[in-house]
Amino acid sequence: MQDVYAVIMAGGSGTRFWPLSRRAWPKQFLSLAEQNESLLQATVRRIRGLVPSERILVVTSERHSEATRQQLPELPPENVLAEPAARNTAPCVAWAAAHVSARSPSAVMMVLPADPHIGDEAAYRELLMRSAAAAENGGLVTIGVTPTRPETGYGYIECGAELSAGVFKVHRFVEKPNLERAQEFVRDERFLWNSGMFFFRADKVLEEYEQHLPDLHAFASEYSKESGRSNRQGAQKLVTERYAGLTSVSIDHGIMERARDVRVVPGQFGWYDIGSWTTAWELAAKDEQGNAVLAEASLVDANNCYVRAKPGKLVALIGVDDLVVVDTEDALLIMPRERAQDVRRVVDDLSQRDAKKYL
Amino acid sequence: MQDVYAVIMAGGSGTRFWPLSRRAWPKQFLSLAEQNESLLQATVRRIRGLVPSERILVVTSERHSEATRQQLPELPPENVLAEPAARNTAPCVAWAAAHVSARSPSAVMMVLPADPHIGDEAAYRELLMRSAAAAENGGLVTIGVTPTRPETGYGYIECGAELSAGVFKVHRFVEKPNLERAQEFVRDERFLWNSGMFFFRADKVLEEYEQHLPDLHAFASEYSKESGRSNRQGAQKLVTERYAGLTSVSIDHGIMERARDVRVVPGQFGWYDIGSWTTAWELAAKDEQGNAVLAEASLVDANNCYVRAKPGKLVALIGVDDLVVVDTEDALLIMPRERAQDVRRVVDDLSQRDAKKYL
Repeated sequence: MQDVYAVIMAGGSGTRFWPLSRRAWPKQFLSLAEQNESLLQATVRRIRGLVPSERILVVTSERHSEATRQQLPELPPENVLAEPAARNTAPCVAWAAAHVSARSPSAVMMVLPADPHIGDEAAYRELLMRSAAAAENGGLVTIGVTPTRPETGYGYIECGAELSAGVFKVHRFVEKPNLERAQEFVRDERFLWNSGMFFFRADKVLEEYEQHLPDLHAFASEYSKESGRSNRQGAQKLVTERYAGLTSVSIDHGIMERARDVRVVPGQFGWYDIGSWTTAWELAAKDEQGNAVLAEASLVDANNCYVRAKPGKLVALIGVDDLVVVDTEDALLIMPRERAQDVRRVVDDLSQRDAKKYL
Repeated sequence: MQDVYAVIMAGGSGTRFWPLSRRAWPKQFLSLAEQNESLLQATVRRIRGLVPSERILVVTSERHSEATRQQLPELPPENVLAEPAARNTAPCVAWAAAHVSARSPSAVMMVLPADPHIGDEAAYRELLMRSAAAAENGGLVTIGVTPTRPETGYGYIECGAELSAGVFKVHRFVEKPNLERAQEFVRDERFLWNSGMFFFRADKVLEEYEQHLPDLHAFASEYSKESGRSNRQGAQKLVTERYAGLTSVSIDHGIMERARDVRVVPGQFGWYDIGSWTTAWELAAKDEQGNAVLAEASLVDANNCYVRAKPGKLVALIGVDDLVVVDTEDALLIMPRERAQDVRRVVDDLSQRDAKKYL
């Protein structure tokens, strides 16, 4: 197979993991499932061996670029692309495509979010390579995960005809469904979870940008030109001046849903979008009472709780069930697991009053 | 009225207020109801004006004597009697009686616990003076609190005949009742809560010790003799050598329940035995949702919670009711209010394993 580049999208702000995630320290820097590596580090580790470090790009915000380089010392520093403004994923992919295009126009890009959990890494790697191969001839490819439960928090993909072994036409992308629809989707083999992992040749995806998002294509072309003649200053100037003004749209809505030739490779590899403290509890090792305890603790009649605190802090729970308890140096969160989506309400509350130091 | 001494019993270990109370910092040093003074300081403040500082004695453990002196700088340091061992309240009162007896044998002693909350301080002070006056002629006097609810956590006193205006004979002391009995007691005017506040002349209570607890009487007599001739070293030597060997029994069981002439002065003065975090919540100021918040907090759908943390720490609660949350530098407690009695189970757990630093 020809050149493969990996593009890791690490632009998360991570309010859903407050108080562990902060503005200055978002979700991708946290260890939420594994103990000794962050989500971002795990994502890079999993593709090591498939893609050499020089061809792994990480797109993140300017504010987090230093920490990103520190977490990934094996990457050339210039492979961390620092966005001057958050413009959703379409500009981020356009920039990465321009970067790749300047080096190897027909290289295949694997675009991967920084933060999923992967339970079966061997199956995952095999699927990455198959999907990258499926993109070699020019289509846009995505990985669809076989649903195991009626999840209402994910988008779905409806498959069409099988084009080649294990590669299907995408019939359509489906927004997050209600429970009834999600239950239908689990029973119906045609529906897959949208994993947010995409595979395409740089030149081919840039053609799609030209058609569907021309301002992003113009930016990418200019960047590719400057970058191709090693004019780093000129390329950087372009980003500084133009990036914040680019159309803010997701790669899903802006490109994948509009392109004609989109394909999906279905698979199952223990994929989890770690979207909230509830998922963190689901993934964590638990004691016999269902407690996931990442702290020194004394538990009396406590069941199915998620407890996390810094070393040297003792957490005592008496007679509580299904609680999430996350304690940090300066902030403590306590809520039932089922309220995990409401963490943003605390973050909103703190934003609106004079308590930004806790964000 | 002749000389009145106050004896404040401050021997508590206070496991029920863990993690705020610690072995080195027990309940009486905490601010649980008032914001700016500890329970001990409030107890002393309330009797200021009734009893001069030179005649206020505090009996506490050796380990807490320094902190006690620091909390009460207005007291002569020698008025803090430091027990070398915890022997319950009868030895503590015997020692204090010997101390008083050496100075003024027929002085009246008010014996007061260090830790109740008093809602109506004017009524309380009036009652203290009436009770002290009732003890002048030689009887043992206690204050009985008119019950306002069927409390099963307190002992009760059954009144007999009225001996003089507002002073009744004690018919008997009653142990903590079950709920059914407690409900009867609330309806029956003869029953009062045992406040643990006692009034008697030093010489008269020492006569009772001679009869009922002769070893404590012998100790008190020797101490009084040494102390009376200003032989502080001799008196201290006696305490060091003998105190740990004295009969360990409460003043209630050892003296009050056995003495013949015991009287009770009924009253109502917003008395609360702050026995647990539940009581602390009951006494605290609350917001419209019933939350008592002694911390910087962000509350989303939280009701009837007690939240306490150190300055600079933010506590966020989402969707929880009736929780006690007490956060300190190195320990965090979370439990439903109704489980407050089980804090000792955490303390026991920590004692039994290698976690004593949290006690």
